[in-house]
Amino acid sequence: MRALVWDGTLRYEPDYPDPVPRADEALIRVHMAGICNTDLEITRGYKGFQGILGHEFVGEVVTAPDPTWVGKRVVGEINITCGRCYYCTHGMPTHCERRSALGIFGHDGAFAEYLTLPLRNLHPVPSSVPDHVAVFTEPLAAALEVLEQVHVRPSDSVVVVGDGKLGLLIAQVMALTGATVTLAGRHPERLALAETWGLRSVLVPRGEPFTPPRLPSAHGKGDVVVECTGTGEGFAVARSFVRPRGTMVLKSTYHGLAQVDLTSVVVDEVHLVGTRCGPFPPALRLLQEGRVDVESLVERVFPLDQGVDAFTYARGRLKVLLRMDEPTVAHDR
Amino acid sequence: MRALVWDGTLRYEPDYPDPVPRADEALIRVHMAGICNTDLEITRGYKGFQGILGHEFVGEVVTAPDPTWVGKRVVGEINITCGRCYYCTHGMPTHCERRSALGIFGHDGAFAEYLTLPLRNLHPVPSSVPDHVAVFTEPLAAALEVLEQVHVRPSDSVVVVGDGKLGLLIAQVMALTGATVTLAGRHPERLALAETWGLRSVLVPRGEPFTPPRLPSAHGKGDVVVECTGTGEGFAVARSFVRPRGTMVLKSTYHGLAQVDLTSVVVDEVHLVGTRCGPFPPALRLLQEGRVDVESLVERVFPLDQGVDAFTYARGRLKVLLRMDEPTVAHDR
Repeated sequence: MRALVWDGTLRYEPDYPDPVPRADEALIRVHMAGICNTDLEITRGYKGFQGILGHEFVGEVVTAPDPTWVGKRVVGEINITCGRCYYCTHGMPTHCERRSALGIFGHDGAFAEYLTLPLRNLHPVPSSVPDHVAVFTEPLAAALEVLEQVHVRPSDSVVVVGDGKLGLLIAQVMALTGATVTLAGRHPERLALAETWGLRSVLVPRGEPFTPPRLPSAHGKGDVVVECTGTGEGFAVARSFVRPRGTMVLKSTYHGLAQVDLTSVVVDEVHLVGTRCGPFPPALRLLQEGRVDVESLVERVFPLDQGVDAFTYARGRLKVLLRMDEPTVAHDR
Repeated sequence: MRALVWDGTLRYEPDYPDPVPRADEALIRVHMAGICNTDLEITRGYKGFQGILGHEFVGEVVTAPDPTWVGKRVVGEINITCGRCYYCTHGMPTHCERRSALGIFGHDGAFAEYLTLPLRNLHPVPSSVPDHVAVFTEPLAAALEVLEQVHVRPSDSVVVVGDGKLGLLIAQVMALTGATVTLAGRHPERLALAETWGLRSVLVPRGEPFTPPRLPSAHGKGDVVVECTGTGEGFAVARSFVRPRGTMVLKSTYHGLAQVDLTSVVVDEVHLVGTRCGPFPPALRLLQEGRVDVESLVERVFPLDQGVDAFTYARGRLKVLLRMDEPTVAHDR
């Protein structure tokens, strides 16, 4: 099959071996997949993974241990779990001690014609949700995980720091609560997009000390601030927005150690909450109901055989998608 | 009056001006005061405070706007608050926007014959609690703040990292919940003290990479881990003990920025909670009921006029107390 493979260099493989599903796994033909910052991080050495990248996808079941699944269009949860460890048996399967993760470690990913996943990882996609929307299920679920972990109140003042693809999803999800949402970022055009959704925005200039403006809340600060940049600077900006006893959500992985002001976390008794993968069913519901704008986040769709170019293009951009269905003529010769 | 003053150098002043109480304040004759790590940090530049240090004390009311307080033996909350801002009117007075803090900023402290505090900051000390025990009310309240902020369950596995004076108080408070408590520290003699209280202990060797031992819990890790060292190394040790979705409590202020692994906080969805000052009434109850051993934490009592020596002695030690009542002969000449 055709696949985009990382083994220290990223390359397109026109003839990679097809994956062989295990007893509990379905074989899925991938329709479309999204490039995530984690994919870009892996090509910078994160996790030391080698194999087919990609964990955001929508596809169609080709074979399955339960034949009623065959032909269904599906999205899939990325953590492949043991079902028996403490975390699996205590409602925290995404923390399974023996997990592998689609396209991240121990399991080939979605930037290929086919992938395999256990049947229990799959969720059927409603027919009204097109592929280029369904492919956002995984990152939207990750955005919803903030609300799984933190109680955001309708009367809260929420700040999302970072106007990347994840920040723009999280900002929209936060706004569904009724809270006042402010997006803080460095890209005027993305802040303008957020304003079309009714959100407030704050431009964070590059290379200058940042002083947060007073927010429209009784205390002028953020009750809940979500850090989506994965940088020490972003942490400092987010911290500057949080009120005493407020909550700061960490959403992105950081490159190496981060230099952060923990004293102010102690003095202001801030709660910091790390969050990662989230629930697929509510993500699919919100996509079906059209409550989150994902189409505005798509910058470009590349065919799989131009995946290396897609990676180069994706750095610093919003969502770049790969479509698996039609190889370009150039590579079919 | 006699006082221990910090203005860039620490010095004993035999003839410092007496404090003048404001309309809502009591004048208190200090019996005894404790040296806290925050005091030591201030003499390293923390907060830029100048004046009389000290915020852990027990004393006797000399004058008060309500005369029924005169003659009462009291301890006092250290935050002097406005009573009107968002935080004061929302149950978070320790975060008052216009607060000063006894011996820390904007208000002279307890290392003196007299101090002033608003009457609403004071708590009478039961007669059965002697001065050298009552003087622990403030740090014990700070230890209890962990339980104000975090739900520790009787079935939890708790780790306290740092066997300093605050760590030893917090470890005892955690054990009152019924949880399995492990104290991790660098001082064998302090770990041995914790074992006399029925706690478990783990020696953290200096200058070597630390691998946490498996704890006696279903998952082998800590559900709640309290970091009391205020160092990046302590943070890393604490982090290594926390289970996925566990809680890490930050209890100490850090000197400058800390270098920390935030990616692992995100991946394991750890909750970090900063905590500071705590509630006095339960601290006084626990001291009266003899449920926390504070006497074993006293390393030495110095008279006030030997306060500079006391500070030198206190660094790296458990609790060092100052007594105000009897000036030594040498300084009275």
